[in-house]
Amino acid sequence: MKKGSSREKDFIKTVVDELCQKTSYNAVYHRSSQEEPMPSIETLIEIVERLRSILFPGYFSDAEMMPKTMSFYIGASLDKVEILLSEQIKRGFCFSCTDEEKQDCMDCEKRSHDLAKKFISALPKIRHQLASDVNGAFEGDPAAKNPGETIFCYPSIKAITNYRIAHELHLLGVPIIPRIITEMAHSQTGIDIHPGAQISEGFFIDHGTGTVIGETSVIGLNVRLYQGVTLGAKSFPKDKTGALVKGIPRHPIVEDNVIIYSGTTILGRVRIGKNSIIGGNVWLTRDVPPNTRVMQGGEFRPITESEY
Amino acid sequence: MKKGSSREKDFIKTVVDELCQKTSYNAVYHRSSQEEPMPSIETLIEIVERLRSILFPGYFSDAEMMPKTMSFYIGASLDKVEILLSEQIKRGFCFSCTDEEKQDCMDCEKRSHDLAKKFISALPKIRHQLASDVNGAFEGDPAAKNPGETIFCYPSIKAITNYRIAHELHLLGVPIIPRIITEMAHSQTGIDIHPGAQISEGFFIDHGTGTVIGETSVIGLNVRLYQGVTLGAKSFPKDKTGALVKGIPRHPIVEDNVIIYSGTTILGRVRIGKNSIIGGNVWLTRDVPPNTRVMQGGEFRPITESEY
Amino acid sequence: MKKGSSREKDFIKTVVDELCQKTSYNAVYHRSSQEEPMPSIETLIEIVERLRSILFPGYFSDAEMMPKTMSFYIGASLDKVEILLSEQIKRGFCFSCTDEEKQDCMDCEKRSHDLAKKFISALPKIRHQLASDVNGAFEGDPAAKNPGETIFCYPSIKAITNYRIAHELHLLGVPIIPRIITEMAHSQTGIDIHPGAQISEGFFIDHGTGTVIGETSVIGLNVRLYQGVTLGAKSFPKDKTGALVKGIPRHPIVEDNVIIYSGTTILGRVRIGKNSIIGGNVWLTRDVPPNTRVMQGGEFRPITESEY
Amino acid sequence: MKKGSSREKDFIKTVVDELCQKTSYNAVYHRSSQEEPMPSIETLIEIVERLRSILFPGYFSDAEMMPKTMSFYIGASLDKVEILLSEQIKRGFCFSCTDEEKQDCMDCEKRSHDLAKKFISALPKIRHQLASDVNGAFEGDPAAKNPGETIFCYPSIKAITNYRIAHELHLLGVPIIPRIITEMAHSQTGIDIHPGAQISEGFFIDHGTGTVIGETSVIGLNVRLYQGVTLGAKSFPKDKTGALVKGIPRHPIVEDNVIIYSGTTILGRVRIGKNSIIGGNVWLTRDVPPNTRVMQGGEFRPITESEY
Amino acid sequence: MKKGSSREKDFIKTVVDELCQKTSYNAVYHRSSQEEPMPSIETLIEIVERLRSILFPGYFSDAEMMPKTMSFYIGASLDKVEILLSEQIKRGFCFSCTDEEKQDCMDCEKRSHDLAKKFISALPKIRHQLASDVNGAFEGDPAAKNPGETIFCYPSIKAITNYRIAHELHLLGVPIIPRIITEMAHSQTGIDIHPGAQISEGFFIDHGTGTVIGETSVIGLNVRLYQGVTLGAKSFPKDKTGALVKGIPRHPIVEDNVIIYSGTTILGRVRIGKNSIIGGNVWLTRDVPPNTRVMQGGEFRPITESEY
Amino acid sequence: MKKGSSREKDFIKTVVDELCQKTSYNAVYHRSSQEEPMPSIETLIEIVERLRSILFPGYFSDAEMMPKTMSFYIGASLDKVEILLSEQIKRGFCFSCTDEEKQDCMDCEKRSHDLAKKFISALPKIRHQLASDVNGAFEGDPAAKNPGETIFCYPSIKAITNYRIAHELHLLGVPIIPRIITEMAHSQTGIDIHPGAQISEGFFIDHGTGTVIGETSVIGLNVRLYQGVTLGAKSFPKDKTGALVKGIPRHPIVEDNVIIYSGTTILGRVRIGKNSIIGGNVWLTRDVPPNTRVMQGGEFRPITESEY
Repeated sequence: MKKGSSREKDFIKTVVDELCQKTSYNAVYHRSSQEEPMPSIETLIEIVERLRSILFPGYFSDAEMMPKTMSFYIGASLDKVEILLSEQIKRGFCFSCTDEEKQDCMDCEKRSHDLAKKFISALPKIRHQLASDVNGAFEGDPAAKNPGETIFCYPSIKAITNYRIAHELHLLGVPIIPRIITEMAHSQTGIDIHPGAQISEGFFIDHGTGTVIGETSVIGLNVRLYQGVTLGAKSFPKDKTGALVKGIPRHPIVEDNVIIYSGTTILGRVRIGKNSIIGGNVWLTRDVPPNTRVMQGGEFRPITESEY
Repeated sequence: MKKGSSREKDFIKTVVDELCQKTSYNAVYHRSSQEEPMPSIETLIEIVERLRSILFPGYFSDAEMMPKTMSFYIGASLDKVEILLSEQIKRGFCFSCTDEEKQDCMDCEKRSHDLAKKFISALPKIRHQLASDVNGAFEGDPAAKNPGETIFCYPSIKAITNYRIAHELHLLGVPIIPRIITEMAHSQTGIDIHPGAQISEGFFIDHGTGTVIGETSVIGLNVRLYQGVTLGAKSFPKDKTGALVKGIPRHPIVEDNVIIYSGTTILGRVRIGKNSIIGGNVWLTRDVPPNTRVMQGGEFRPITESEY
Repeated sequence: MKKGSSREKDFIKTVVDELCQKTSYNAVYHRSSQEEPMPSIETLIEIVERLRSILFPGYFSDAEMMPKTMSFYIGASLDKVEILLSEQIKRGFCFSCTDEEKQDCMDCEKRSHDLAKKFISALPKIRHQLASDVNGAFEGDPAAKNPGETIFCYPSIKAITNYRIAHELHLLGVPIIPRIITEMAHSQTGIDIHPGAQISEGFFIDHGTGTVIGETSVIGLNVRLYQGVTLGAKSFPKDKTGALVKGIPRHPIVEDNVIIYSGTTILGRVRIGKNSIIGGNVWLTRDVPPNTRVMQGGEFRPITESEY
Repeated sequence: MKKGSSREKDFIKTVVDELCQKTSYNAVYHRSSQEEPMPSIETLIEIVERLRSILFPGYFSDAEMMPKTMSFYIGASLDKVEILLSEQIKRGFCFSCTDEEKQDCMDCEKRSHDLAKKFISALPKIRHQLASDVNGAFEGDPAAKNPGETIFCYPSIKAITNYRIAHELHLLGVPIIPRIITEMAHSQTGIDIHPGAQISEGFFIDHGTGTVIGETSVIGLNVRLYQGVTLGAKSFPKDKTGALVKGIPRHPIVEDNVIIYSGTTILGRVRIGKNSIIGGNVWLTRDVPPNTRVMQGGEFRPITESEY
Repeated sequence: MKKGSSREKDFIKTVVDELCQKTSYNAVYHRSSQEEPMPSIETLIEIVERLRSILFPGYFSDAEMMPKTMSFYIGASLDKVEILLSEQIKRGFCFSCTDEEKQDCMDCEKRSHDLAKKFISALPKIRHQLASDVNGAFEGDPAAKNPGETIFCYPSIKAITNYRIAHELHLLGVPIIPRIITEMAHSQTGIDIHPGAQISEGFFIDHGTGTVIGETSVIGLNVRLYQGVTLGAKSFPKDKTGALVKGIPRHPIVEDNVIIYSGTTILGRVRIGKNSIIGGNVWLTRDVPPNTRVMQGGEFRPITESEY
Repeated sequence: MKKGSSREKDFIKTVVDELCQKTSYNAVYHRSSQEEPMPSIETLIEIVERLRSILFPGYFSDAEMMPKTMSFYIGASLDKVEILLSEQIKRGFCFSCTDEEKQDCMDCEKRSHDLAKKFISALPKIRHQLASDVNGAFEGDPAAKNPGETIFCYPSIKAITNYRIAHELHLLGVPIIPRIITEMAHSQTGIDIHPGAQISEGFFIDHGTGTVIGETSVIGLNVRLYQGVTLGAKSFPKDKTGALVKGIPRHPIVEDNVIIYSGTTILGRVRIGKNSIIGGNVWLTRDVPPNTRVMQGGEFRPITESEY
């Protein structure tokens, strides 16, 4: 490892000097409010893994728990989640805190803790939803041998678990943390669900790679999607200054029992009526009535009795 | 980290109590037969990494092996694989064991070990197949500089290696483990090959993200796919009770030398005749004769001599 | 863990013998020139993580750096990168070294170090490009709350960072290492950008899963892509021996300000004129004039003032 | 790393052949009964760390536990200890199992589990003893600022904790595991207490390095030792075959409230009467009456009132 | 892993209940002030390792630093030490905080940070002292081949480095942290130096196992000790309540150039005059004049010219 | 973690500047010859662990090896040891290389590799010696239940294994590495054996903490030592410049079958005749005839028949 002559070290100094000029780093440098550290990806992974083990007891870590000892394991793990999550929520607030907001610093720690507790209180509800999603996966995939296999192996359940956790935090107004949690699942599964989307029970995404569900999407009961499905926005209104107007409803509403096959793209605030089936590779930017089958070429036709 | 007042701890107890009620956990709780632990993802990763190093000597771990010392490294690693895999196969059986099957418990351990040995005996064959897949990758991708690069970097080779390992275990009747192994590759590469698919030699998937190959697909020699290709099922017959009939042939048969471009979806038990070329973004639900080019719009035409 | 009788061990020896025959391993065995070890994926991950922290100070590791201490952190980390990268570049050369090239062995170490230094000198330029990409992401995604969120969470920024690092090494003639670096990002994000592609500033890929950008693609300023977009090759000319001719321009040229929606495939050395908008799920194999909107069905129409 | 010519590899084979001859390995090769793996040092470390956290709540891992959540943490951790320790006890039996004992194989697993449970039932008693040892340390060391410091930092408490755990397992008849646990503490603290020694409450060893307490020692209440003290055996009777007679009482009895200063050696089944004080660097092989001070030169004198 | 019947789980509950009764845990349970976590051994190890690398550049981690790049490495590492140490000092205060002290909480964080900075300012002095200790080791040990070997391998240098760091923190009034740091070295080297001891430059302890240097010891320049030397206290005065009086001078004063051979014990506030040589296994409880040799039997004689 | 004002950062710069002045770092800074990295403690630990597993098959890592598969495990592990050790030997040479020696650089790499091979060739001899040491431990300790227990748990066997490895490297002229290897054992066991000592077969050290065996000691067959024994040097002759004369014989010769009890110190080039027994806490600086018992007070008497 010969690193050589003194000239070379001057070379390092030159590059360092360039990189440390404010003009170079200004647009890509970050300091959270109150010198708070950045949210910790590692800790958030731990939190999500703990939650997964709590939600699906016996499958993941602490898999040795049995009904008689379950409360020990879940109690200890929840207590840790409360501590770790409070801290990460606070870091999330400090990450995105603007100068005007700083007056709230005083109770930001308390507020973070309160939100962590509210989140934890929602876990029984989240488990109930996930149990319905597991059922959706087992019933919707002929290759699934038993519901346990979908919990243990299916990317769909992993992605939806992260989403349901992230969505609850999103509803509580926690910044950035929810997005990090859904991106973890996106990276592992190729399924990209925005934490702001509203998804009812019994949801299943088969295979899943490349499926995208946008921020303001609304999805009904027992909906089934396949890989490569996009529920996206059609256009992005800009304000007078030319900046994007953020946060307005711009993604589809998918009603109960809809099936959307692979590669299909649905854009804009359209409504896909209940019980409809949208074929694969379809491009859709308008409403679909209930009980309608949308064919490859794009034509609509009513679904007959025998198709169920 | 102020965790606060006693009231808060009662709060934790309340949530724990809810989560530990049988009505809450019943549908999402698992206990393997005989209190056997769950299959270990970590150990399965180790097994697959050992197999990869054995199949492609010199590329991955133990890369220092040379022809004269190769037998030491491969012998020691195979011996470990035999022990580790026997255990994981047994856990797989216990994971999906039903009450009726429990009479077999006695020889389940021996049976798991025998299957591990049968699997190991198949490794020379698997390596032979993978060598042909490497050749397919090098010949099929103008960006590949040499075959070694495809072994070391290409997601296709990683996904197909996992598939060929998993398929062998699937043929031996091992439950759940094969699926875990293909899902590992799915997560890393975006390529989702069901362990039940039958794929001949010389197989290559360029880029690969989003490609899905269903459980009963049959693929001939020297087939080449691109990213976002689906070989899927068209419909899922249900039995009289309305439950999905599982396991019947429902995915395409792709004959020798076929090329399928990106984003194409082929559904159902159709047959794509040999030497045919299917364009990208095509939606196909019927048979294609041999030597046929299927165009974007969906029309078929014979392939001329000069197209090869 | 009963491994059993002596017969079994003969079984292991039999398999080892098969796997250690030259006819079995020959096509899948590797030895780098000069017995140099293989490139280390682990070290390359460390290098990329260090570079990410240097390029975006305050976001990733060493996040505690502040303007007054930034030069310490960046200096120490760059010095390590210089040492680590020199070594990996040398391994890259030895990996792909052919017998004819071996006369260069003598100065291969020095050459590797010189290239590492040239790469490091390019970091201020790379940061400048990435700052423009961050701006592109923030302006292009209504869901982005602030630019920092795109740096910290967005797969697009992760994939483009890896690409810009890899592309610089590609320009310097470093073999295999650039491909490993883009494959890391491909695995984590589903975005597959070949290190040879030429991409100007202000580039953004929303969601990104399944997007593929081929080796000879050329992309102008402020281009925005979505998930599932392919910039691919149409055909692969072969030489008289039937082998693929490698390295000729065969992927699209995308001019400034173009937007390409999800699922679209553009193949061949076609030119997409500036300011054009290509709809989703489109299949394109011909040139598009500037300021043109390409619709789902494939028809072209000029873009009107109000569409911006 | 040039490893060179073929001759060298034959060299490796030659050494391997020598090392694999039975005459070479026979005296130093081990196979546990039933192919059971060796006791796992790593797991035993985990068990001891868990027990330390349970015995001293709030100091070590799971330090976040508070009275209201303590039962969660202790319950979950004890359940894991039960599982892990049962397995290690079984491995201990198989490690030292002789051919005659093998008929017990059938219930060895159950027996191991029962012993683990008995051990766990003794934890409240062990904690009570350790609380008295902590008190002994705080009262005996003028440098100790508070009792918590002795729990968190003092080698004496670490060594005695391991001893009390190991002694309980020793009383239950568990082979080898107790010795491994005291050797862990010996390695970290230089204090070597045999698991068979009988030590009453309120025990303290200041500094401790080099202190040795032999297998059949008996130590009363509130005894204090310093570094380099040996409680050893004077002679080892041999049987007619010349083999050592193992297990007979051969180490000192030290009665209540005795203090033994650094570097002192006491050998044989002698009795040190209560309240006596033995000076440093003393060599003692005979009984000491109660209330006696043994001086450097070896003379005895009664302890006066004022010396307490 | 058969854990068995329900009765067993009641057994766990019973033990948990016992262990969670206040009478059981009260004497061994800890809660730091302000719910602050316990000092982190892991972080303190990191701090000491960083300091060792800073004090002896080129030997330990960041060993690639060279004079031209040294300031980068040392600057970055010192900045981290400042942050990490501030936090650990604060935890130290909270660990030992009593109810009366709690009024200082407000500025405890600031005070911790100020102390960390004062400590860092002392590093050049500490390095100067350690350089003299290295010289003492090299000159005092005929087996030392070069000074670098003593820095890299000798337990003496490791123990004295930890001591000099801990002593500086002790002088600054930091609670518990100094003791943890010297205990780390005690565990690894068998050398137990209390952080309160005052030790001048040029200090060397050969072999070192079992050497103990008490809290109020004072050691002059260029002193050399061997293994098993005790500088201890003779008696511990008690106050009227019978409690030990803590903190009064009770250990020896060892003047410049003294050598003390192995196994010797010196107790009480005695003074060993400069240039004296104390033989091995000696028991000493009274003053020794300068230039005196103390023999094995304990007799004193003047040192002659030729003995130097 | 508020790190605060700009003034503070100037403070860091000031300390960095002090520490980076040549006058500050000069005596404690190291650069190996040829910019070679420092010997890696981590790699040396791996080497020693591999050797331990090879020497005592079935006890430590790769414990699953059985006679039929032993050659695989030992072959693979030895091949790795050859590669790793060659590199560490080279680093050892570069660590202590002086300017005059640098002409040998050319073949230093080859020489290192040759020495590694010579070392490996000695392993059968080393195992033979260790088997005799194991026997010595089992026969010498009434607390040992079986020979396997001494291999798996006894600090004596650990320390002697490291010594025998280090001594072989010492004989081959390898610098610094042998010392690092014996210091590893010193740190874990408190037993400090210099790699230069010559120790015959059947050696045992009971308990061992604080035992020191100097560089030029010579120890015969079947010798047994206890804790706290020193075989040291009496005086260190200096040359005319006042520097220590290094390397001359200055430690005891201990003949066959000698037993030395705890705490005894023997200094200088004295000879302890065969079959002699030296009591504990003895101070000895003169020869002892064969068959002699040295008592506590120091008197000698012949050993009677009945004492064996």
